[in-house]
Amino acid sequence: MTSDQLADRPPMQWDRWGDPDKRKVLSDGVKGLLQQALGVVPDEGGNIEADAVVLTPSALTDQQLAGLAGIVGDDNVSTAHDDRLLRAGGKSTLDLLRRRSTDAQNAPDAVVVPGTDDEVARVLTYASENAIAVVPFGGGTSVVGGLDPVRDRFDAVISLDLRRFDALSELDTESGIAVLGAGLTGPRAEELLGEQGYSLGHFPQSFLFATIGGFAATRSSGQASAGYGRFEDMVQGLRVVTPTGSIDTGRAPASAAGPDLGELFVGSEGTLGVITQVRVRVHPVPETTVREGWNFPDFATGAAALRALVQAGTVPTVLRLSDEAETGINLATTEKIGESAVTGGCLSITTFEGSAEYTAERAEEARAVLKAHGGTSLGEEPGNGWEHGRFDAPYLRDSLLDAGALCETLETATNWGNLDNLKAAVTTALTTALSDQGTPPLVMCHISHTYLTGASLYFTVVCGQADDPIAQWGKAKTAASDAIIAAGGTITHHHAVGVDHKPWMKDEIGDVGVRALRAVKDALDPAGILNPGKLIP
Amino acid sequence: MTSDQLADRPPMQWDRWGDPDKRKVLSDGVKGLLQQALGVVPDEGGNIEADAVVLTPSALTDQQLAGLAGIVGDDNVSTAHDDRLLRAGGKSTLDLLRRRSTDAQNAPDAVVVPGTDDEVARVLTYASENAIAVVPFGGGTSVVGGLDPVRDRFDAVISLDLRRFDALSELDTESGIAVLGAGLTGPRAEELLGEQGYSLGHFPQSFLFATIGGFAATRSSGQASAGYGRFEDMVQGLRVVTPTGSIDTGRAPASAAGPDLGELFVGSEGTLGVITQVRVRVHPVPETTVREGWNFPDFATGAAALRALVQAGTVPTVLRLSDEAETGINLATTEKIGESAVTGGCLSITTFEGSAEYTAERAEEARAVLKAHGGTSLGEEPGNGWEHGRFDAPYLRDSLLDAGALCETLETATNWGNLDNLKAAVTTALTTALSDQGTPPLVMCHISHTYLTGASLYFTVVCGQADDPIAQWGKAKTAASDAIIAAGGTITHHHAVGVDHKPWMKDEIGDVGVRALRAVKDALDPAGILNPGKLIP
Repeated sequence: MTSDQLADRPPMQWDRWGDPDKRKVLSDGVKGLLQQALGVVPDEGGNIEADAVVLTPSALTDQQLAGLAGIVGDDNVSTAHDDRLLRAGGKSTLDLLRRRSTDAQNAPDAVVVPGTDDEVARVLTYASENAIAVVPFGGGTSVVGGLDPVRDRFDAVISLDLRRFDALSELDTESGIAVLGAGLTGPRAEELLGEQGYSLGHFPQSFLFATIGGFAATRSSGQASAGYGRFEDMVQGLRVVTPTGSIDTGRAPASAAGPDLGELFVGSEGTLGVITQVRVRVHPVPETTVREGWNFPDFATGAAALRALVQAGTVPTVLRLSDEAETGINLATTEKIGESAVTGGCLSITTFEGSAEYTAERAEEARAVLKAHGGTSLGEEPGNGWEHGRFDAPYLRDSLLDAGALCETLETATNWGNLDNLKAAVTTALTTALSDQGTPPLVMCHISHTYLTGASLYFTVVCGQADDPIAQWGKAKTAASDAIIAAGGTITHHHAVGVDHKPWMKDEIGDVGVRALRAVKDALDPAGILNPGKLIP
Repeated sequence: MTSDQLADRPPMQWDRWGDPDKRKVLSDGVKGLLQQALGVVPDEGGNIEADAVVLTPSALTDQQLAGLAGIVGDDNVSTAHDDRLLRAGGKSTLDLLRRRSTDAQNAPDAVVVPGTDDEVARVLTYASENAIAVVPFGGGTSVVGGLDPVRDRFDAVISLDLRRFDALSELDTESGIAVLGAGLTGPRAEELLGEQGYSLGHFPQSFLFATIGGFAATRSSGQASAGYGRFEDMVQGLRVVTPTGSIDTGRAPASAAGPDLGELFVGSEGTLGVITQVRVRVHPVPETTVREGWNFPDFATGAAALRALVQAGTVPTVLRLSDEAETGINLATTEKIGESAVTGGCLSITTFEGSAEYTAERAEEARAVLKAHGGTSLGEEPGNGWEHGRFDAPYLRDSLLDAGALCETLETATNWGNLDNLKAAVTTALTTALSDQGTPPLVMCHISHTYLTGASLYFTVVCGQADDPIAQWGKAKTAASDAIIAAGGTITHHHAVGVDHKPWMKDEIGDVGVRALRAVKDALDPAGILNPGKLIP
């Protein structure tokens, strides 16, 4: 396999987010702001060229490489430097900081690219028999260490790239169900569906690069989750290949035939099996989109308004609320961060999609509720601005890291009644942990996913980099995670568990929960080769 | 324990449905119809008095009874004839036919009524150590053999009655979340919530007798599922006591912290643990209810109209459609079965609940869609009639059994695109299997639960009783179940699995699914005492 085969994929850099052509240049104003407000010292270190990176040598023997090639074909097994390097990890800030190290980089010992369920099954059998760990790989956008090439007790680890599962193999327009290959990226899935007038409507920040299988494996939640649901709500069924057999979940839109096994594999992060195909709920491409920006005097007022709207049964497609800090630096619309006058209050965005009549009616209903709860309409513009820049925040992070700042995000969720408490607890934990290290942070927060009973909280943290930014963020992340658990939140709302959240999983699901997951893991993957070191404590 | 402790519960007969005072007398017209159309021969056999029933003797030793009493108290362990008899099984037609037998009845060897999680845990430990099977018991309304006192490889079996878990222990009106004891019946839960202005909105046909824990354990779906969701959608969290520890599921409205373990215990039918408490989504008691009846020329047209309505995003609280046969005999409104002129076409019912403005607007939207898809409004009356009689069908079944007819229901679900195919396949299977036995049936069907991607199909079958009605129905049920699987439906949409659907579970979830469930079972219930013989093949 050569990197040419990546041609149909959006470009993704080994050490930064996405497309090099989309690099975001910070204005002098922003740089000055970072220096003045956060004491950020510009970092003079340049990037490392991919060719100059030293990788740990591949631990696979020639015999093992031949064995794998015997299953998937010579062209679909690669130990090429660039192929291994690109799959050395995901895109958390810790990942990006590690990529900046001049030490030898740990990378998978080979990249294996199966083309059929049978090939996946045979690779898993071969790996089980030859003590090779397997990390399923989609778009490479994990921000929780879900792709770390952990060898655990095994001799070697391979990256199992699902890109060849790239078909829209079925579209039932009557039922609104499509069958999508796990390796399809978000844009490619939308393109294939769009050709027939349909849309999935799943737009997480990773959309441009992440894959259908990855969305399922991590319980992804997109920016239109209020309207179209979380990815697990879209999933009607999964095909999962395990080392001991395959399963197709979901025979009907709903069933009382025991526990919902689809919900066991959604969120399994490659530890129980390899998701190769996903049956998803789709909808006609909406005729109309109506966007509107709102200002609320403060976060509590805005949150109460969002709650009233959702609980009244008038649910927008997109529903967001930035807190005072995020609104103040205009991070809500990344395109203009720090480039316009600081506004007071909190910015909210609503979007309605559907027929012209439907969106007009629902938007009018929403207006009445939001106005009654203290909202002031800002018209279309803020919504359009947000829409335009909504996938760009990771580029901004790269530029901030370049400029000597530390920047990372984390997220949680809780009931409406606990939202303020959780927000305060996490903000305090982050502020204290970073200030104690001499780098007082700016902590911003928004609600991006709402439910009848509660909402998500998404935090963005910016501060100056300490001497050891990996250790610096580690302390802050631990403090925030401890605070989340203590304040009754979930350790992750849509980023998944991976390596990074694993230490809190026992708090999240308890000893019985851990034993239940471990039991399923042992039954389906008795050799334990699937994504070791992730998810299950 | 004496039966006096049942005083706060709605009356439930050991051999029939519900309240003896609500027995439904068949009119001579209906009796004549049964005789003429189905050749039903009136049954002259009378009911057996409870006192006259011979029960298998309790297999528990005095030492074991003392051991159990040591945990829950003397008053909460009973081997009384009536207490055992009432828990001898559920309320399927097979159950009722078995209760009519003069042979010795198999019944649990004792009824144990714990009052705390700790007592449940200690009973499970005691049972594990003493080879005693445990059947969790709520309202006793299972129609799939979920309560059968199966001893499997154990020396004895107890019925673990959850009635003492009867508190509304928390109501968070901001989040719309209530914490309900597993033993609360539907009406009692609504009463407690209603005192504070809230409602759960879960109204399955078993509502008057079934319990919160039972709803969760069986993935119940109520008549207002279109608006308020299935019971698993309402569940925000569960407390489950297993023989090896307890678990609280659900830290947030949504999470990406691995597989959703709540979805593993919802539908576990007492095989993985005992559900003692359920956190549910609740809503303010609706101000207004708007009901409307509709006529469609045929089932296909009606189903397409329902699909259009749901997919347009205008979802009523209740949405039903009876087929031509069911509409013809007026079973859709049980109160008037066979008592009014046969109408053509198919009857549909819509109900909207909420504020006056909301219901008026949504009902108007729905009217436009249903009219555009061939519907003719019948005004309020049919909806009111349905509402009035909606919990009464099981009483009608008892009267039909008394009259010498065989009557039973079964249900499935599938995608919209497969609905007609599945309906035809099941109808043919039932008709053929019963006609082949000399008892041609009347097979009726309705849609009572709708989803974006599909709907449920609920079949009612009436025919004459053969000499051995248990064997007779067994053949028909097997034929219908085989047809459901072959035609791509789920083996059960809301009745659960129990003993009756277990033979089809391997078709439903595959070998990998069975092994996953078995692994969890073995990990949490290593002695295998929890509801043996149910759910997991």
